[in-house]
Amino acid sequence: MLLCDIGNTSYHFLDSTYDYKENVENFNPQKIKETIYYICVNPKLSKVLKSLKNWINLGDKIDTKDYYETMGIDRIFACIALDDGIIIDAGSAITVDVISHGSFEGGFIYPGSLAMNEAYKNISSALEYPFNYEVSLDKLPKNSQDAISYGFLKTLYSEVMLHKKNIYLTGGDAHKLQHVFKNATVDKELIFKGMKKVISEIL
Amino acid sequence: MLLCDIGNTSYHFLDSTYDYKENVENFNPQKIKETIYYICVNPKLSKVLKSLKNWINLGDKIDTKDYYETMGIDRIFACIALDDGIIIDAGSAITVDVISHGSFEGGFIYPGSLAMNEAYKNISSALEYPFNYEVSLDKLPKNSQDAISYGFLKTLYSEVMLHKKNIYLTGGDAHKLQHVFKNATVDKELIFKGMKKVISEIL
Repeated sequence: MLLCDIGNTSYHFLDSTYDYKENVENFNPQKIKETIYYICVNPKLSKVLKSLKNWINLGDKIDTKDYYETMGIDRIFACIALDDGIIIDAGSAITVDVISHGSFEGGFIYPGSLAMNEAYKNISSALEYPFNYEVSLDKLPKNSQDAISYGFLKTLYSEVMLHKKNIYLTGGDAHKLQHVFKNATVDKELIFKGMKKVISEIL
Repeated sequence: MLLCDIGNTSYHFLDSTYDYKENVENFNPQKIKETIYYICVNPKLSKVLKSLKNWINLGDKIDTKDYYETMGIDRIFACIALDDGIIIDAGSAITVDVISHGSFEGGFIYPGSLAMNEAYKNISSALEYPFNYEVSLDKLPKNSQDAISYGFLKTLYSEVMLHKKNIYLTGGDAHKLQHVFKNATVDKELIFKGMKKVISEIL
């Protein structure tokens, strides 16, 4: 079974257990002839894919009323994958969503590491440091690099921990954030798991 | 007594109880003929002011070893003003510093509202909203504007509250943050108070 999670920059395919990416700019979706189940947050591509019969939009198969109107379909499918827990999807944005007993409680959006780095840099060149993911979370910093690293990471950590849920990390920066959320489960296939769950319900 | 706190964009004067600002670009410091006590984070201006005899740099009068090398002198003077508490100085950056029994425990730096707005906007135009300072902190959001507002404000709030200190808000955005930190004391003159404390010790 072929699955695809389409973002703003790439197609992320899962072919049984093998996953790979293709660039949104170069890849021609007509190259795929077999049935493929997808979700897509890219409005331009959504139109193109609608016209292709073998591309099946799983976004059409779910009840979105439990979520909210402008919530990204990728966030929704990560939520579908879980019955209980807090999901941290760390990409260009860091989305944090809470699921309790199979229902979505709500979530928030925090800037990703790149956006945060830019934000500090734009305030002052004196704040232009790479983040220290090993920064101590038990002690207030006394140097600039740790002061911005703590500002970025510890504030997020303090909020997430208040929810007292099992933590699931996904997205491109999942491994970086595991330095902070040491007991979290890294699961890069959370969205694909949500897609498989929906497929098993509709087939 | 004339005091002045000089930032990157303006001179902030306090003439007894009357405070006013002058732009760094236009104002000529030689216009002031009386004795004036100042602190300055602006490296270019520091050089100019050093050559003026009536401008007395209070930054030279304190022991900075209790703080850290790259810590802004304005942050240090806000800390000097307090014996115990947590200071949130909300400007282009939001600095958060903790003082216990008169000594500096450490602090962190979080992006200010403008920098955070830019950060969200640069991730996606779908995240280009003004912050809702009235966002509920007790309930996870289910709409995009509240999702970024909660991401910006509640993470900071959760971290600050863990320190269990009296909260002092200062800086240009102090009143905005008071919607979030409802029990905080807003004190726009914290830095001037620190300056007066040092003057009383050296005179």
